[in-house]
Amino acid sequence: MIAQKTDLDFMKEAYHEASAAALKDEVPIGAVVVWQQRVIARAHNLTESLTDATAHAEMQAITAAAHYLGGKYLNECTLYVTLEPCPMCASALYWCQLGKLVYGASDPKRGFTQIPARLLHPKTQLVSGIMAAECGKLISGFFKNKR
Amino acid sequence: MIAQKTDLDFMKEAYHEASAAALKDEVPIGAVVVWQQRVIARAHNLTESLTDATAHAEMQAITAAAHYLGGKYLNECTLYVTLEPCPMCASALYWCQLGKLVYGASDPKRGFTQIPARLLHPKTQLVSGIMAAECGKLISGFFKNKR
Repeated sequence: MIAQKTDLDFMKEAYHEASAAALKDEVPIGAVVVWQQRVIARAHNLTESLTDATAHAEMQAITAAAHYLGGKYLNECTLYVTLEPCPMCASALYWCQLGKLVYGASDPKRGFTQIPARLLHPKTQLVSGIMAAECGKLISGFFKNKR
Repeated sequence: MIAQKTDLDFMKEAYHEASAAALKDEVPIGAVVVWQQRVIARAHNLTESLTDATAHAEMQAITAAAHYLGGKYLNECTLYVTLEPCPMCASALYWCQLGKLVYGASDPKRGFTQIPARLLHPKTQLVSGIMAAECGKLISGFFKNKR
């Protein structure tokens, strides 16, 4: 019998993506999409590399996962992301009817939970705080080095 | 002396894009980005063709305009779109610090103004209602034909 992977296992994969972003001098945020216990999309923030303010990890992960599945709805998928999504990404997750969202660190400045309305799809389950300290430290360390 | 083009002139270009979407059996929403009185990006909704729930006209127009300008900020640009942007697109316009947003028809169901918080960038000017009736009729006609 193969052991089921946990939210922590998959968040480690998202963290690995965030680390890859840091190596490119991008704000280190990473995401993976999981379907049937398998990672079907991996992405990290590429706003600088692509000169595109919308190239957040989640946006790319959504597009890649939909391409993999051949359908635009991700209702059977879980998206793991190291930082709480911004309103753009949360609303994108609404449109693709994401099954479950798991995020690491909270973002008290730009996180979607700061908006006094539900941006996620009504059916999207939400889990937060997985590897919050590590995910947050990666980002704060990145900005500390910038100064 | 060359006459300055108006918001109406540019909204006609966005409407033309929306019509192109209808021909592809996509929900007919179109957008253009204008910089220094010139259209630098044109796009229409492609969520079905690209199997991507995030492929809204505005998202593609932002990416194309940033690519044209070689910079991710659109603070000197105006985006014209036939329908009031959704929260995803409005938040994307926040990230690119759009100079001015002009939309045609209102969207009382999914428009960003339904959210009780400012999603646009604080510096983004807002104009609405340009060709509202025509833009709205294009979309309602599309859905009427679907039934």
